[in-house]
Amino acid sequence: MGISVSEKFANMKPSATREILKATSDPSVIAFAGGSPAVDAFPCEEVKRVSAEILEENPVSALVYGVSEGYEPLRQTVREWLKKRNDIGTDDDTIIITAGGTQVMDITTRIMTNPGDTIICEEPSFIGSLNAFRSHGCKLKGVPIDSDGMNIEALEKAIKECPDAKFIYTIPNFQNPGGTTLSLEKRKAMYRLAKENGLLILEDDPYGNLRVDGEDVPSIKSLDTDGIVIYAGSFSKILAPGIRVAYAVVPKAFAQAFVIGKQVSDVHTGVLNQMIVERWFEEYDVDAHIEDIKKIYRKKLNLMCDCLDKYCPKIEYVRPQGGLFLWAKLPDNVDMLDYCKRLVENKVAVVPGTAFMIDDEAPCHYIRMNFSTPSDENIVKGIEIMAQVLKEY
Amino acid sequence: MGISVSEKFANMKPSATREILKATSDPSVIAFAGGSPAVDAFPCEEVKRVSAEILEENPVSALVYGVSEGYEPLRQTVREWLKKRNDIGTDDDTIIITAGGTQVMDITTRIMTNPGDTIICEEPSFIGSLNAFRSHGCKLKGVPIDSDGMNIEALEKAIKECPDAKFIYTIPNFQNPGGTTLSLEKRKAMYRLAKENGLLILEDDPYGNLRVDGEDVPSIKSLDTDGIVIYAGSFSKILAPGIRVAYAVVPKAFAQAFVIGKQVSDVHTGVLNQMIVERWFEEYDVDAHIEDIKKIYRKKLNLMCDCLDKYCPKIEYVRPQGGLFLWAKLPDNVDMLDYCKRLVENKVAVVPGTAFMIDDEAPCHYIRMNFSTPSDENIVKGIEIMAQVLKEY
Repeated sequence: MGISVSEKFANMKPSATREILKATSDPSVIAFAGGSPAVDAFPCEEVKRVSAEILEENPVSALVYGVSEGYEPLRQTVREWLKKRNDIGTDDDTIIITAGGTQVMDITTRIMTNPGDTIICEEPSFIGSLNAFRSHGCKLKGVPIDSDGMNIEALEKAIKECPDAKFIYTIPNFQNPGGTTLSLEKRKAMYRLAKENGLLILEDDPYGNLRVDGEDVPSIKSLDTDGIVIYAGSFSKILAPGIRVAYAVVPKAFAQAFVIGKQVSDVHTGVLNQMIVERWFEEYDVDAHIEDIKKIYRKKLNLMCDCLDKYCPKIEYVRPQGGLFLWAKLPDNVDMLDYCKRLVENKVAVVPGTAFMIDDEAPCHYIRMNFSTPSDENIVKGIEIMAQVLKEY
Repeated sequence: MGISVSEKFANMKPSATREILKATSDPSVIAFAGGSPAVDAFPCEEVKRVSAEILEENPVSALVYGVSEGYEPLRQTVREWLKKRNDIGTDDDTIIITAGGTQVMDITTRIMTNPGDTIICEEPSFIGSLNAFRSHGCKLKGVPIDSDGMNIEALEKAIKECPDAKFIYTIPNFQNPGGTTLSLEKRKAMYRLAKENGLLILEDDPYGNLRVDGEDVPSIKSLDTDGIVIYAGSFSKILAPGIRVAYAVVPKAFAQAFVIGKQVSDVHTGVLNQMIVERWFEEYDVDAHIEDIKKIYRKKLNLMCDCLDKYCPKIEYVRPQGGLFLWAKLPDNVDMLDYCKRLVENKVAVVPGTAFMIDDEAPCHYIRMNFSTPSDENIVKGIEIMAQVLKEY
C-alpha cells in the first residue's frame, strides 16, 4: 500500500514565477521577473531603529504568543489609517492581521469554499492566488480584462454559467499581471452583480498605494454597504515583503470564521513583525514615505516604457498608472516561450504569460515585466537585449 | 441568496484554550491555562543583539522575499543540529521552515487528505492540531493513552475500523495535554503498524528538548527507513513562540507537495525571523541554553507536583518527565466544568479537559495545568486556591 498526496495536491505544480526566480538567483541575470520593491525603497534605517527600541523596551511582549486577530495596537492603527486614506471599513468590519497578502486569499478560500466550488477571477491573474485557490480543490473561471479592467458582460455570463461560484476575485488596481485598473463604473457593476447573485467579492489590493499617474479610484470595499466584500491590503510593497505583515478587512458575518481560519493556519502572525509595523507608523510619516517611493517607481516605469518604445516598438503594452508590472504583447511571429528561453540564455529574465492563465498550456503571446527591482542601468541594458533577441525571429 | 461559510467551517468553534487565555488576560488571574515558556527562559538579550547585527549588516536581505523552503543557512543549521542531537534526518529528507509548529500540521493535512478522510490521534490531544485537522473536513479517530503513551491494541483496532485513515498524529514526548511519553517499544510498534497499513506518521515534537527527568527516547523519525514519517519541531518552546519559527522534516516523496503547501499558505516564513534563529545558533550555545531552561522547568514542575500532593491529595496525575503540562484528574464527585468556572471566579485559570477531547461534550474529569508560565509564588498560591474550591464539593 503506497502513501500518496491528496487529489487536490496531486496536480499542483510549483509556481513558474518562483522557479524562474530561483533560476535567476544568478546575479548576472537582469531580473525583470521579480516583484520585490526597489532596493532603495526599503526603509532600512527605520526598521533597524524601531526593532532596537522594541527589543530594548519590551522584549518579552515581542516574544510571547499573540492572539490570532493580530496585535491590537496595529489593528487599531490600520483601522484608522485605512479609514482616513481610503474610506475603507465600518463598525461592521473586523481588521485581521495576516502573514502576507497571499494568506488572505488562502484563508478566504478555506472558510468560504468546498472542493469543487468555482472562483471567478480575472484572466490573466496573479499565479500565487490562483494556486492558493487550486490547492483547496476549487475550479477557476476566468474573465478577460479590457484596458479598464474585467469585462463586465463576460463577468455576467461567467456568473450565469457557474451556479457553484462562491466569490469573485479581483485585483482592481494595477492588476497583476495585466497592469489595468478597474474603472469606478465597473466596480459598481461588479458589486451589483455580486450582490444580486449572492457572491462575495475578494478585493486584493497590494498595489493601490503605488499610483504614479492619474486619480485614485474608490475601492470596492468602500462601496460595501451589504457586508459582501473582503478587502486584502499589505505592507509588502510599501514597507517590505520579507517582514510578512498584511491585513484583511472582513465583514462581521465572516469574521469569526476568518479568525479560526487564521488560528488553524499558523496561530498568529509574528509579534515582533507586527510591532515593527505598528511602531513604524507611530514614529514615521508613512504617507510621506509612500510619496517618496512613488517617485522611484514613476521614474522606473517611465524609463521602462521609453526604452520599450525606442528599442522594441513591435512589443505592445498598455501603460499602467501604477503598480510594479508591465504586461507586454510580443509580435505574432514570435513564439513566446521560446523567446523567454532565449532571453534567459542572454541573461534577461521575464515571466512567461502562460504562468498567469487558468489553462497554462493555451497559446499566449504575453510576458510580464517588472520595473521596480532592476536598476535603471539594467532596465536600459535588459531592453536592448530584448530588442536584439527579437530580431532573431 | 445569502453568502455563508463552507460546510467545513460552519461547525468550527474558536479554541477553548484561546478563549480562556483571552478571558484571563486580566493580570490578577493566576494562569495555569497557558502554554508559553517561562518569562525568564526567553533569551531577550541574545535576540536583541542578533537582530541589531542583522539589520546593521544586511538589512535588505532580511526585508526582501525569501523562498518557500526557508532561509538556506537556517535549513542547514537545523539539519546538522537535528542529526547531531536527535539522529533525525537522512539524505532522503528535506527540512522545510514553517511559521510555527501548527503550520506543519496544517500543511500535512492540506497535502495528504481530502475532506472526509480520517486522522488517527491520541485522545486527549492538542486542541490546536485537532482544529487544524477539522478545518480540512477530516474526521478524527481517538486512541486512548496509557502512562507510556498511545494504547497499541486500541491503535490497531482503530486502524482496522478506519480504512479511510491517512495518517497517525502523535505527540510522543510529554504529550499535550496527557504529559505521557511514548515508550520505545510502542514507537516501534506504531511504526510497524503504520508501515503495514500504508499510513503516514505525523510526529509532533515541540517539547522533546524539555526533558527534566529520565532518559531521552529515540524519535519515531529516527526509525524511519521507509520515508513514512513527517517530523515537526519548533523553536517556540526553546527560543520564543512569538517569533513563529518551526520546521518539518519531510520524506522525499512528499517534499515538493509540502513546499507548494507552504507557498500557497503564506509564500514563506518571515526572513528576519529566520535570520534571528540562525544567528542565535551561530553566536550562542543553544544546547547550553536548553540545559539552563530545563533547570527552570524542573524546579517549577517539582513545585507544582509538591503543592498538588500537599494541598490537593485527591487530585490524581502521572508526573511527567518534561514538557509544560500536568494532566490532572478531579475526584469523582466534582463536576469538572463547574470547578473550572469556580476557579476563574477565584482568579485561577486552568483548561477544562473537554477541550482536548474529540467529542468535547462527553463527560470528562480532567483539567490541564501549565507550570511554565506562572511564577513560583503563584504556583503555590494558585494550588492553595484550588484546594479551597475543592472543599466546596
